[in-house]
Amino acid sequence: MADSAQALPRIVIIGAGFGGLWAASALARAPAQVTVIDERNYHLFQPLLYQVATAGLSPADIAAPIRGILSRQRNAYVILGHVVGIDKARRVVGLRDREVPYDWLIVATGARHAYFGHEEWAAFAPGLKNIDDATRLRRKILTALERAEQEPDSRERQRLMTFVVVGGGATGVETAGAIAELVKVALARDFRVINPAMSRIILIEAGPRVLPSFAASLSAAAQRALEKHGVEVRLGQPVTRCDEAGVMLGEERVACGVTIWAAGVMASPAAQWLEAEQDRAGRVLVDRNLTLPGHPEIFVIGDTASVRDEAGKPLPGVATVAKQEGKYVARVLLARLARKPEPPPFRYRDYGELATVGRNFAVVDFHWLRLTGRLAWFVWSVAHIYFLIGFRNRLVVAMDWIWAYLTFQRGARLITASNPDE
Amino acid sequence: MADSAQALPRIVIIGAGFGGLWAASALARAPAQVTVIDERNYHLFQPLLYQVATAGLSPADIAAPIRGILSRQRNAYVILGHVVGIDKARRVVGLRDREVPYDWLIVATGARHAYFGHEEWAAFAPGLKNIDDATRLRRKILTALERAEQEPDSRERQRLMTFVVVGGGATGVETAGAIAELVKVALARDFRVINPAMSRIILIEAGPRVLPSFAASLSAAAQRALEKHGVEVRLGQPVTRCDEAGVMLGEERVACGVTIWAAGVMASPAAQWLEAEQDRAGRVLVDRNLTLPGHPEIFVIGDTASVRDEAGKPLPGVATVAKQEGKYVARVLLARLARKPEPPPFRYRDYGELATVGRNFAVVDFHWLRLTGRLAWFVWSVAHIYFLIGFRNRLVVAMDWIWAYLTFQRGARLITASNPDE
Repeated sequence: MADSAQALPRIVIIGAGFGGLWAASALARAPAQVTVIDERNYHLFQPLLYQVATAGLSPADIAAPIRGILSRQRNAYVILGHVVGIDKARRVVGLRDREVPYDWLIVATGARHAYFGHEEWAAFAPGLKNIDDATRLRRKILTALERAEQEPDSRERQRLMTFVVVGGGATGVETAGAIAELVKVALARDFRVINPAMSRIILIEAGPRVLPSFAASLSAAAQRALEKHGVEVRLGQPVTRCDEAGVMLGEERVACGVTIWAAGVMASPAAQWLEAEQDRAGRVLVDRNLTLPGHPEIFVIGDTASVRDEAGKPLPGVATVAKQEGKYVARVLLARLARKPEPPPFRYRDYGELATVGRNFAVVDFHWLRLTGRLAWFVWSVAHIYFLIGFRNRLVVAMDWIWAYLTFQRGARLITASNPDE
Repeated sequence: MADSAQALPRIVIIGAGFGGLWAASALARAPAQVTVIDERNYHLFQPLLYQVATAGLSPADIAAPIRGILSRQRNAYVILGHVVGIDKARRVVGLRDREVPYDWLIVATGARHAYFGHEEWAAFAPGLKNIDDATRLRRKILTALERAEQEPDSRERQRLMTFVVVGGGATGVETAGAIAELVKVALARDFRVINPAMSRIILIEAGPRVLPSFAASLSAAAQRALEKHGVEVRLGQPVTRCDEAGVMLGEERVACGVTIWAAGVMASPAAQWLEAEQDRAGRVLVDRNLTLPGHPEIFVIGDTASVRDEAGKPLPGVATVAKQEGKYVARVLLARLARKPEPPPFRYRDYGELATVGRNFAVVDFHWLRLTGRLAWFVWSVAHIYFLIGFRNRLVVAMDWIWAYLTFQRGARLITASNPDE
């Protein structure tokens, strides 16, 4: 790094998700050296990851290289590295083979899947967090059907053609809808022995309704849309076991070829690195300006932080929360750099939620406006294309969707891997 | 499979490359059951594979699922399976776990890389044959630069920033040009410590000129274009060793971070399966109607077959040869099915060759017309987009290219893999 940069305050951001990247961008004109550390070289538009898993989009459509995003931001440095710890006393972030010193630190390391103490389920019911998860799941879905096509035993064939999604939140609902469209529509004519339209897609939710954070009327509408797409929705039934043959619901065995976990997340190990107090989901408890108590130089944001709204309700682990927190932290730092008073405590502006079920149907809950059906789907498409980083991606996604809409095709259904049995 | 199909003659095609797929399509109206066996679920537009490796295109842009291509061809069956042998006496193809009987067999299994008896080089100098090869190479190139960015030792840094392409045929020339553009142009602003424009790209050719199958004037033009793009071209120097630190040219050590093999291919093991006579490159010697001598029911086509033109020159291992052979074999089978006389022996219609060096420059050798430069590049683009299977892919590729042309961006530069050190 240039010598002149050495004198500048060092802001280190761990994680280039929505929180970290929005903080970095908002610091573009800060008289500081902004270093972004991530273990992957891309920023991911996670809300559409299920589309990669179900062969609707290619990885590059929803991911952009971090270096590319920040290439014109002259005060930004990018380090591809795996964080192993944080030394609060010495103010350094420890990577596997080096240390990165900071004056101010922003921890935005996101969340990973939680299996409620059954980590061994992860092997049988993987979740969707990054591109590799998504391409692996795509491979599993397509390979299950390929095996079914060659399977002489009818019971085993039916098992291979059964797909279980655990968790009825937005991710689970969208994934189940997308699998139904892939299997029952896009692949309908592709096989000769099996009829993919006879596949079963089962969405399992432990609570009393899908999309629990939406208005109840929207939950009901989403459930009807899922069922119309051929998804079986099973409510009030927690999964008690996941293994290679399927899942258990209490005493009932549901045999399936692929299980997808969308039931719960756990914050990244940042709380351990920071030796900080955490909530039940592993999220770091922060002060009202998003700093670690007793450490005004350390900020924790996004899925890694436990933040509550005025009513005392924890903020959801969604992109908008992370982005607003990232921008807020940047404002705090800009004030400190300018030796001005810090802004008032963080307040989340809740614009609402959206979720889609296949093509043509979505539910939109803007609080002041609730929509379902085709119009909601249109709103959802425009919002998601708009929020995708990078003009090119927007164009490609728009075109892929228009194309898929017109033809029911899914262009990305490739099984890639050296070992298809993996 | 339907019982009614059992009475129909069974045509089995091994391999869904250009040869196998074109044969299958040409048999769409044949009163026969056409079974295509491939170990991957996609047909690949191999001529553009280097674009995936250099982050210009996504895998789904140049690959299409075989089942999707054949979904409307009602007499076509697809088996995803790994062939382990052929029993000519019993007329069955052996897969790992089942046998597929045939009345007529078309072997179109393509080629793999040959290391001139040094198979241990494969680990250090991988080639490009399928999507997984391409994404792995993309990862290696991008990871080498990420490591260079963090490497304190200047000599090791320069090694990591050196890319060697072995082989000066069309694949080698196009790959070297694309790496130069990726590294020196698209990534130019992405790093802060290293300057990717200082990377070295070295193209090594054992013979006296690049593109040996083109007219000599075009070879010279391609070499000048490569050098203008910053590629060092080294002719007349065979590689004598590949290892983790780079390659040896005689006694000279060329240290590099990534080595790509584009120097030679060897036919797939079909000759062993068939216990057939083969040429030095492992290709099966066939009769003039592309059948195995003594076995009129077995056809061998594409890179797997050794076929000569009227002048006695072996036909090159390119897509056009494979396609024409596939269509020819279909004509022979259609004649047999109709109990009509077989067509005259196979004759290759040579329309010429094209190769590109980065954007704006290509060489076109249509024999009656030779072009270099921007116009040739335009011809090359149109030809490649036209030949890509599937309208959607054509559209996406066209858009990606127009976009890349206008902005010098490469959208697909993602490092994906669970283990980035792999």
